[in-house]
Amino acid sequence: RPFSSSSAMAKSKFEYVRSFETDDTCLRNCYIVVRLDGRNFHKFAEQHHFTKPNDDRALGLMSKSAHSVMEGLEDITIAYGQSDEFSFVFKRTTTWFKRRASKLMTHVASQFSSSYVFYWKEFFGEQPLLYPPGFDGRVVLYPTNRNLRDYLSWRQADCHINNLYNTAFWTLIQKGGLTTTQAEDRLKGTLASDKNEILFSEFDINYNNESALHRKGTTLIWEKRDETVSKRIKRPNEEEKQVPVTRSRRKVEAYHCDIIGDQFWEEHPDVLENDT
Amino acid sequence: RPFSSSSAMAKSKFEYVRSFETDDTCLRNCYIVVRLDGRNFHKFAEQHHFTKPNDDRALGLMSKSAHSVMEGLEDITIAYGQSDEFSFVFKRTTTWFKRRASKLMTHVASQFSSSYVFYWKEFFGEQPLLYPPGFDGRVVLYPTNRNLRDYLSWRQADCHINNLYNTAFWTLIQKGGLTTTQAEDRLKGTLASDKNEILFSEFDINYNNESALHRKGTTLIWEKRDETVSKRIKRPNEEEKQVPVTRSRRKVEAYHCDIIGDQFWEEHPDVLENDT
Amino acid sequence: RPFSSSSAMAKSKFEYVRSFETDDTCLRNCYIVVRLDGRNFHKFAEQHHFTKPNDDRALGLMSKSAHSVMEGLEDITIAYGQSDEFSFVFKRTTTWFKRRASKLMTHVASQFSSSYVFYWKEFFGEQPLLYPPGFDGRVVLYPTNRNLRDYLSWRQADCHINNLYNTAFWTLIQKGGLTTTQAEDRLKGTLASDKNEILFSEFDINYNNESALHRKGTTLIWEKRDETVSKRIKRPNEEEKQVPVTRSRRKVEAYHCDIIGDQFWEEHPDVLENDT
Amino acid sequence: RPFSSSSAMAKSKFEYVRSFETDDTCLRNCYIVVRLDGRNFHKFAEQHHFTKPNDDRALGLMSKSAHSVMEGLEDITIAYGQSDEFSFVFKRTTTWFKRRASKLMTHVASQFSSSYVFYWKEFFGEQPLLYPPGFDGRVVLYPTNRNLRDYLSWRQADCHINNLYNTAFWTLIQKGGLTTTQAEDRLKGTLASDKNEILFSEFDINYNNESALHRKGTTLIWEKRDETVSKRIKRPNEEEKQVPVTRSRRKVEAYHCDIIGDQFWEEHPDVLENDT
Repeated sequence: RPFSSSSAMAKSKFEYVRSFETDDTCLRNCYIVVRLDGRNFHKFAEQHHFTKPNDDRALGLMSKSAHSVMEGLEDITIAYGQSDEFSFVFKRTTTWFKRRASKLMTHVASQFSSSYVFYWKEFFGEQPLLYPPGFDGRVVLYPTNRNLRDYLSWRQADCHINNLYNTAFWTLIQKGGLTTTQAEDRLKGTLASDKNEILFSEFDINYNNESALHRKGTTLIWEKRDETVSKRIKRPNEEEKQVPVTRSRRKVEAYHCDIIGDQFWEEHPDVLENDT
Repeated sequence: RPFSSSSAMAKSKFEYVRSFETDDTCLRNCYIVVRLDGRNFHKFAEQHHFTKPNDDRALGLMSKSAHSVMEGLEDITIAYGQSDEFSFVFKRTTTWFKRRASKLMTHVASQFSSSYVFYWKEFFGEQPLLYPPGFDGRVVLYPTNRNLRDYLSWRQADCHINNLYNTAFWTLIQKGGLTTTQAEDRLKGTLASDKNEILFSEFDINYNNESALHRKGTTLIWEKRDETVSKRIKRPNEEEKQVPVTRSRRKVEAYHCDIIGDQFWEEHPDVLENDT
Repeated sequence: RPFSSSSAMAKSKFEYVRSFETDDTCLRNCYIVVRLDGRNFHKFAEQHHFTKPNDDRALGLMSKSAHSVMEGLEDITIAYGQSDEFSFVFKRTTTWFKRRASKLMTHVASQFSSSYVFYWKEFFGEQPLLYPPGFDGRVVLYPTNRNLRDYLSWRQADCHINNLYNTAFWTLIQKGGLTTTQAEDRLKGTLASDKNEILFSEFDINYNNESALHRKGTTLIWEKRDETVSKRIKRPNEEEKQVPVTRSRRKVEAYHCDIIGDQFWEEHPDVLENDT
Repeated sequence: RPFSSSSAMAKSKFEYVRSFETDDTCLRNCYIVVRLDGRNFHKFAEQHHFTKPNDDRALGLMSKSAHSVMEGLEDITIAYGQSDEFSFVFKRTTTWFKRRASKLMTHVASQFSSSYVFYWKEFFGEQPLLYPPGFDGRVVLYPTNRNLRDYLSWRQADCHINNLYNTAFWTLIQKGGLTTTQAEDRLKGTLASDKNEILFSEFDINYNNESALHRKGTTLIWEKRDETVSKRIKRPNEEEKQVPVTRSRRKVEAYHCDIIGDQFWEEHPDVLENDT
């Protein structure tokens, strides 16, 4: 005869452990930024033979994964990515996951990571993914539009500095025939203008004509787009017929432009809410 | 002539935004539990035709993913999973990620999720994964061994209650020919003993003989195992020869046993540290 | 011979306990509000024979204590009090106590409480303070000017509602001869307009002519005031003489006016910083 | 005619600001320590002519104030003070103020501060208190008995080190006729044993015979004491008479003994709860 202790009673005895959870609700009326960073991506890039200084397949996969996160969370109004990092900005008034920081960041980290593996083949074709990659995340709150824009400017300035350095570094190696040590020495202490000059005078490269994707990173925002589909319609006393129907749909769009200056924000006034 | 503003100076102007990050270091000398839960896994299970009441492929994939997380984080001393959830316990004294809650939980969520997609094929073969799944996570701290054991007992009691219900429910449908509504009605208000009785007297099923994996969930711990490999050795004045070499290695091992009682803990005294 | 173990070494062995302190730095660029509430002040008021519905000595002592807190903390830009509560607003950019919430609120609670006892005699004369009173506090952050003003409006609306009720209640008892139970019944379910009407038609009291201190509470802000003092000055080849010297000094000033509408804020534009 | 806008409606419009409060509940099953430190007490001590190296009036007032805090909060099981600081330990399972850190620390800071002013006269007689003093506080959690005892040991080791230094320093000045600079130089780099030796060989002072209050600080705990009062009792068929009645009452008792070793804890086993 099977025997069963009162399992419900047993469970209720342990249930007190729930009260050890802490409330990590994000302060109201602040932008919530979740930033992800690849873990050990230097090694990951080497093992997967990423091209230097930029691998467009890898950047495309990052964007695709960020896209996948945004499509599932409409309250993310803007995302910005470069290299192996991506930042997601939830609108000030979001109530997603009751604004619980842990839920927001783990969900973003999880969805991004599973997407990265899921879409790998779309960007790397038959080159196999050798092991499941990891990303870690954090949550930061910004009370005002100025603070949020400065955060995004900070990430884009970081993109600029790194990409200019990497472009000069790898050009010295790939076209100039230097070793990595020689290239490092050559660039030690140089200013941005020096690196531009090296590229221009020695390699005839105008850095400003380099790929915007590499220089500016990727900005994802929601945009309304008119979409025309054809629909079969049957009106009373008429024959059924095909009619074109135009609907406005929100879609995630990618930009590779400057987001430090005002122009981008003036052209997309809906991204930020008012400071009230 | 390419022009470049002083980008380093520009970046430093924005760098103040870093000071908006908050310190979420976990209290010292407490066990840190990260629990992951599948998001919308009811729908995910249906879309991927999981068998009812338990799908061994899905459970195997969960365990494999948890395994993958543990292998990368030696300070996880025990992990427990059932259904679409998994809990990871960091030892009290861990200094991984400087005990920062956000880093710990996003890393676990990320590694688990990318592993889930990465190892999908190993468990589901040619059945395609339709979209990247999501898991959300949380961090909970437990100050004492009793609290931690009660947490794990709570999860295993939950496993027991759900599995007994699901076993009875799906047996009534699959073998008893009931509709889901009829099965629900039949089980409404029943105690554990009633469900055992239904299974036994009507379907000749002794619940206690059902799969331990389903009844008890999966417990992962580190174990020392002796491993014998053969090595070629060349000593002076001897010919080179093959010799067996035995080394002790830590490996993650899976158990499907009771962890509510004392026996498991007495047999694995290294899992918990002292309450000091 | 006196013996001494190496006490410095002993101490260093225990010093690890400092790492259990948590960082509770307040989010940057947010207003920090510390609100104090009297503990068991209903009983305290009775035991010290506070007059009903308002005791001007008690209100004066509250203001004096708040004044004392503000004088010591210039970064408090505005304070608002009513009944047995007082709120202190630190400017968004304050770096007092490194913005540590615990330091800010305990300091305010401590300084307010010691001042309350210290200045008791100044307001209550020979009537003795029977025991040391207690106040508890909390910290709340507000990201925008609108949020902060709404917080202060909330407290002043609370003052208005309570004072109108209390005025009607005690008038019914003191002038109308009702018991407390009768007065409660009489006011049950009445709107503000009803209470105004009772006061006006039955007791010839126009509530709007009642003391602004009682109706509006007390608002403390810093103001520049010109102050003329006479100084002895001795110029070369002149006799020493008295000259009037005018200096601008910041002083804490008290208002008993509406702070819900815009007028107060337009007249004191320096209290709030911009939302940037 | 008096006019009144709907004030209740007005208030409800602002009430959303309450949702900006954050939950700062202390982790369950941890000891909660609130430590207070005098603000600018070096200056306070000078202005109030505290005797050097220890002022028994000031130490007595600190203890009295701590006493007053404990009497009002039975869940404080032990308090330890020295110099211008006092630590209060709430039992692991306390539910006072729902374990909200802000409430616990502000209440302790407030009650201590108002008591300090209230009881000033009892210790300083006619010497006036010149201004209301301030104390700031913090909350620290300790998960185990070992951690808590190490915290208290840390504070007592600090007391020992400071008092030995101060005793030697002021003896060199008061009895040795050194200036403060000379005394500083004399003690620079000395070990505890050196200071003991200076006191013993030059001033015939055995440090271990100095006041335990100064060497060990003050430990307050609750103790059951039998208390005999005489009561008038009237039994049926008997004359009313006085009878002695003995009751056990909990009272706060002060100790000036070592709390680093085990003896104190063995003699007072009720102070700590088990680590479970």
